[in-house]
Amino acid sequence: MDDKDRAYPEPVVRLMEELARMPGVGPRTAERMAQHILRIETEDARALARAIRDVKQRVRPCRQCFNLTEKELCRVCADPTRDQGLLCVVEQVRDLAALEASGSYRGLYHVLMGTLSPLDGVGPEDLTLSALVERVKGGAFREVILAMNPTLEGDGTALAVASALRDLGAPLTRLATGVPSGSFLEHSNRNTLADALAGRRPLSP
Amino acid sequence: MDDKDRAYPEPVVRLMEELARMPGVGPRTAERMAQHILRIETEDARALARAIRDVKQRVRPCRQCFNLTEKELCRVCADPTRDQGLLCVVEQVRDLAALEASGSYRGLYHVLMGTLSPLDGVGPEDLTLSALVERVKGGAFREVILAMNPTLEGDGTALAVASALRDLGAPLTRLATGVPSGSFLEHSNRNTLADALAGRRPLSP
Repeated sequence: MDDKDRAYPEPVVRLMEELARMPGVGPRTAERMAQHILRIETEDARALARAIRDVKQRVRPCRQCFNLTEKELCRVCADPTRDQGLLCVVEQVRDLAALEASGSYRGLYHVLMGTLSPLDGVGPEDLTLSALVERVKGGAFREVILAMNPTLEGDGTALAVASALRDLGAPLTRLATGVPSGSFLEHSNRNTLADALAGRRPLSP
Repeated sequence: MDDKDRAYPEPVVRLMEELARMPGVGPRTAERMAQHILRIETEDARALARAIRDVKQRVRPCRQCFNLTEKELCRVCADPTRDQGLLCVVEQVRDLAALEASGSYRGLYHVLMGTLSPLDGVGPEDLTLSALVERVKGGAFREVILAMNPTLEGDGTALAVASALRDLGAPLTRLATGVPSGSFLEHSNRNTLADALAGRRPLSP
C-alpha cells in the first residue's frame, strides 16, 4: 500500500491489494482494474467473483497427467484416440495448451507443475517428477519428449528429468531449438542462431 | 476465446474471459492470472472474490464531489479542516488520489467521472458537469482549479468546463504544464518544452 491508496475507502484499498497479488499486475494496473470493477454493473462484477469461486471449486489436476480438469481424468487422458505410446513432458498447463493449439501433437502429456529452481527452494519433490517416473515405469512409451522451455531453468529441469528417466527404457527426445518459423535471421539473437546452426539438418533430396 | 483456450476446462475459460474484460489485461495476462488463482489457496481466492463483491456493495460516489466513499460524504468533503473556498476539478478519482498523495492541496474536489469524447459518444450529460455548475453557483469558491490532464481530451474537457462555469463568478485556473520536476530537458518532448518556455516565470530577486 503506497501513499496514494490512503485516498481510497478501505474496501477499494483491499481490492487493489488482492488484485496486485496476481502476476503481471502492478499497483497501477490494480488501481485501474479496481476502478473498472467499480464502474461496471453489479451483475458483471458478481460474474467475475463467481468465476473465481467456480474455478477453485470445480477445477483440479488430472489424476494421471496433472493437466486441469473438472473430472478425474483430463480430456487428453480420457481420449482413447490419442497415441498412448507417446508422452510429452511440459513445465506448465499453459505449455500443454500451446501445444494443443498447434494441432501437431496427438500423444499424451505430463505436466511437471514448474521447473527446478534451487535458489527459490523448488526441488524435485515440488514437481510431479516422482509421478512421472512411476508413469514411465508402468507404461510402455515408445518415446518421451522433453518439452521444457529452452531457458536456463527449463534446460536444467530437462537434464534432471532425463537423469530420472534414463534407466527406465523409454527413448528420450527434446524439442528442436532454432529460428522460429516466420521470423527473420536479422532479428534472431546469437543463441538462437547458434542453436539453428548446431541443429542444421540435411535437405531431403 | 482463441484456439488455445479450448485446451482448458470451461470454468477456466470463463474466468479468463471475465479477467480479460478488465483494462490492461490481455489474453496472456488473463491466462497467467487464472493460473495464479488456480494455484493459490482456496481461502485466498475467496478473499479476492469477496473483495470484488464488497467493493460493489459498500462503495459509492460521494453525494457532493463524486469521490469514492462508504458514507454519504467522502472523507475530503466531511473534513471541516479542508479549505472550503478552493475547488479542484479532476477527471477521475485516481487523479484525486494522486493529488492527495502529493500532500500539497487542502481544498475540496469535484470528480467529473471522465472526459468529453464526442467520437466515443461521451457528452456533457455523461459527466458530472451539471452537478459542478450547481455546486459553483451555490458555493462561494474564491478559486476553481481545472486539473484535467494536459492531453487532447483533458484540454478539450477543460475548455468545456471553463465555458460552463465562466459566468458564475468564481475565478478559474488551470494546472501549470512544463518540465516535470526531477526530469531532464534532453528527455522532454517538444510540447513539454514549448509549454515550459511559454509558462516561464520571473525569478524572485
